[in-house]
Amino acid sequence: MVSSLVKPLSVNSDRLNQSIEDLAKIGHLSHGGVCRIAFTPEDITARNLVQHWMIEARMSVRIDAAGNIIGTYAGKDPQAPALSTGSHIDTVPTGGRYDGAYGVLAGIEVVRVLQEADIRLNHPIEVIVFADEESTMIGSKAMVGKIVNEPEYYTHADGTDIQSCLESVGGNWNKIKQAQRTKQEMAAFVELHVEQGPVLETLGKQIGVVQGIVGQRRFIITIKGRASHAGSTPMNMRQDALVAASEIVLAVNRIGNTSGQQVATVGKLQVTPNAPNVIPGEVEMSLDIRDLSNEHLDHLMAELLENIKAIATRTQTEIKLEPFLRNEPAPAAPQIQNTIAQVCEDLELSYTYLPSRASHDAQEMINLTDMGMIFVPSIGGISHSQTEYTSPEQCVAGANVLLQTFLRLDQHYS
Amino acid sequence: MVSSLVKPLSVNSDRLNQSIEDLAKIGHLSHGGVCRIAFTPEDITARNLVQHWMIEARMSVRIDAAGNIIGTYAGKDPQAPALSTGSHIDTVPTGGRYDGAYGVLAGIEVVRVLQEADIRLNHPIEVIVFADEESTMIGSKAMVGKIVNEPEYYTHADGTDIQSCLESVGGNWNKIKQAQRTKQEMAAFVELHVEQGPVLETLGKQIGVVQGIVGQRRFIITIKGRASHAGSTPMNMRQDALVAASEIVLAVNRIGNTSGQQVATVGKLQVTPNAPNVIPGEVEMSLDIRDLSNEHLDHLMAELLENIKAIATRTQTEIKLEPFLRNEPAPAAPQIQNTIAQVCEDLELSYTYLPSRASHDAQEMINLTDMGMIFVPSIGGISHSQTEYTSPEQCVAGANVLLQTFLRLDQHYS
Repeated sequence: MVSSLVKPLSVNSDRLNQSIEDLAKIGHLSHGGVCRIAFTPEDITARNLVQHWMIEARMSVRIDAAGNIIGTYAGKDPQAPALSTGSHIDTVPTGGRYDGAYGVLAGIEVVRVLQEADIRLNHPIEVIVFADEESTMIGSKAMVGKIVNEPEYYTHADGTDIQSCLESVGGNWNKIKQAQRTKQEMAAFVELHVEQGPVLETLGKQIGVVQGIVGQRRFIITIKGRASHAGSTPMNMRQDALVAASEIVLAVNRIGNTSGQQVATVGKLQVTPNAPNVIPGEVEMSLDIRDLSNEHLDHLMAELLENIKAIATRTQTEIKLEPFLRNEPAPAAPQIQNTIAQVCEDLELSYTYLPSRASHDAQEMINLTDMGMIFVPSIGGISHSQTEYTSPEQCVAGANVLLQTFLRLDQHYS
Repeated sequence: MVSSLVKPLSVNSDRLNQSIEDLAKIGHLSHGGVCRIAFTPEDITARNLVQHWMIEARMSVRIDAAGNIIGTYAGKDPQAPALSTGSHIDTVPTGGRYDGAYGVLAGIEVVRVLQEADIRLNHPIEVIVFADEESTMIGSKAMVGKIVNEPEYYTHADGTDIQSCLESVGGNWNKIKQAQRTKQEMAAFVELHVEQGPVLETLGKQIGVVQGIVGQRRFIITIKGRASHAGSTPMNMRQDALVAASEIVLAVNRIGNTSGQQVATVGKLQVTPNAPNVIPGEVEMSLDIRDLSNEHLDHLMAELLENIKAIATRTQTEIKLEPFLRNEPAPAAPQIQNTIAQVCEDLELSYTYLPSRASHDAQEMINLTDMGMIFVPSIGGISHSQTEYTSPEQCVAGANVLLQTFLRLDQHYS
C-alpha cells in the first residue's frame, strides 16, 4: 500500500531514458557500447554533462580531492546527514551504456522529480559520481579513508601518474585525505545498478534487493606430480598432476553447489609440459570463491583443504595453495533491504533477494555508513560488453524504487 | 636347464660394454648423453664404426636403398632365411647412449662370440642398423614395403630432402622399393632394447619378454560451454567447459585403471579464455590410449564415449572427439616369447612379460616376419634423456638372452 504522500510521485520515464541515451553518445562505440575510460577526454566530457544536469536540477555541485563529483539537493534540516546515492560513469574499454551510468542518472532523475514537485526531504540528497570505479576505485576508497598505497600504485593503465589524472578532473592527490568523510555527514548510501548477472532475468523478477557484496578469496594452486612417457609408464606408476587437478576442479564445483549462495570457480589452468604423449608433471590453477559470509567461506575453505589433502595422497602429488587476493564481504544494512523490499511490494514490482557477486563502490561505502543496493535485470546476464542491455521499462522501475526508498529512509533516519 | 651345447656360450662382457662406451663418444654431450641425429656427420661416423666392427666379426655388409646397414653372418644352409636382430644408432637431440645402440651392439657381440667359437648356425644371422628410427622410421618402413608417401613427406627436420639424406649414407630414394624384403628371406626378427619405462626396475626383474608393441589411438576432444562472469553467474546457471573436461580426465584415468594392460592419458589441455574470474567457455584436450588388442581398445573407447555423452548432458556442454592418429598393435610371435622366457629360466634370470608402449622398428617388421623383443631395465624408467642408464651387468644379461634365443630359434625354424 502506497501512502497518499508518495503515491503520485514517480520518475519521468522519457527524461530518464533520454539521459541514458545522451550520456551514451559520449565515447560511443559502433556496436552500441561505450568506451569512456576514467580521466580520458570522453570521461571529462561526460562528467561535465552530468554536472550540468545536476545544476539544472538545483543541486549544488563540488569536486572532492579524489575527483568525485558530489551533487547535493538540500534538505529541510541543515544539520541532517545526507541520504546518498550514485555510482560511476567511467567504463571498461568496450563497455555497455548502463553499468554505472544508470545509477548516476537515476539519482539525478529522482532529484529532478522532487524539485519539480517542490518537495524537500528532511535530509539532503546526494548524488555521487565516483572516480575511476573500473580500475583503481580511487574515488570510493578515498571517501572512506582507504588510500593506503603510494601514488605509484594508482598509476593509470596508460602510464599517466595519478596526480595528473586527478588534476584533469579537479582533484588533487596531495589533498586526497580531505576526501574522507564521516558517518555524521552521511546517513546511508544506496546504489542502483544493473545486475550484471542472469538471476533476475532467469527468475522473471523486476527488482533485486541486494543482500550485500560478496567477499572474494582468490588462490593459486600448484600441483607437482612427475612428467613421464604416456606410453611406457603404467597406470599404477603415475603421478599425474592433471588427474589431481581435475579432482580439485570437481571438488571446487561440488563445494560451490552445496547449500548456500557461494560461487566457486577454477577459471585458469595451465599444464606443464602440455604434450599429448607426456603425463602432466605440473599444473597451476586459480581458485576464486565468493560468499556474503566470512564464516561460511572459512567453513567451505576448510572442507576444500581437507579434500585437497586427500587428493594429494591419492594421486601421490604435492599440492600447494597460496592466497592471492582477499576482499571482505560487505553486507547491506537490514533496514535498507527491508525498505527496498517494502517499496517493491507497494509498487507491485516483483523482486528477489540476492547477493552482488561483482564489485561496486558500495562495497567501500560500508566502511562509512549504512549501505544498500538495488538491482535491475541485465538481459542475458551480459555486462562489460557492448551488448549489455536493460529495457527502458526496467530502468524506470528501478529509478522509482530508488525514489520511494529515499522517501522512506528520510522517515527512518529522522 | 641349459643344454650342454649352449651352456658355455656367453658374450664377452667387457667387449660389449666397451663397444657401448666407444659408440657413445660419437656425438657425446656434456651430461653423458648423445646427440646423433640421423644423416648428420655424427650418424655417418657412427655408421662407419659399426660397419667396421661387423667386418671384423666376419660379417658381410651391405647398405640397402633405404640406408639400412645389413650385416650378415653366414649360416650352414645357404637356402635358409635369416634370423635377424638389430635396432638403430641415431638418437633424439639430447638422447641417451643405450636407446637403439645397445641392440645393434649386442647383436654384433653375439656374432663375435659365435665367430670366436667357430660356430655357424643353420640360418644366417643378420644384424640390421635401421635408418632414422627417431624420426621417419624410413629404414624399417622401406624394408616392409610401407613407403606410401611422396618424398616431401620424409624431408628432414633441418630441411634436407630425403634423397640427399639417403645418398649421404649410401641409399637411394629412387630405388627405395628395392629395400623391401620377403618372409622367404627372414625367418624371424628379434630386437633387444632398453625398456624406456619403469616396469622392470619396479618389479625387480632383469629381463622383459615383450608381448608386442601396443596399438595407439590419439584424439582431440573439444568442449564448448559458455564463458561468463565467475562472480555474477550462480552455480546452477553455468556451462563450465573445465568442469566437463575434468570429468573426462577422470573418466579416461578410470578406464586406464580398469583391468587390462592399457594406458590412457590426457597430456595436453588448453582452457579458453583462461582467466581466474571467467568461467571457462572452451577446453581443447588430447586423449592418448594404447593397448595390445584392437578389440580391447574398441571396447574401452565405446565405454569412454558413453561416459562422455553423459558428461555432456550433465554439464550442458557440447563435446566433440576427433581421431588424430592410429597405430595398429604389433603382437610378438608366441613361439619367440616362449623361447625368450625359456632362455631366462635356464639362465636363471628373473623376467616378466610386458607390452612395449613405445615405438620400435620391430613394430614394422611384423608386416614381414615373426617378431619378438627383449627388454632390459631403464633405471628410473628414464629414456630420451642424457641420464638414461642401464648397468653393464644388465646389458650383458640382455645380450646373453639374445644369444641363447638365436641358438634355440635356429632349431625352431629348421
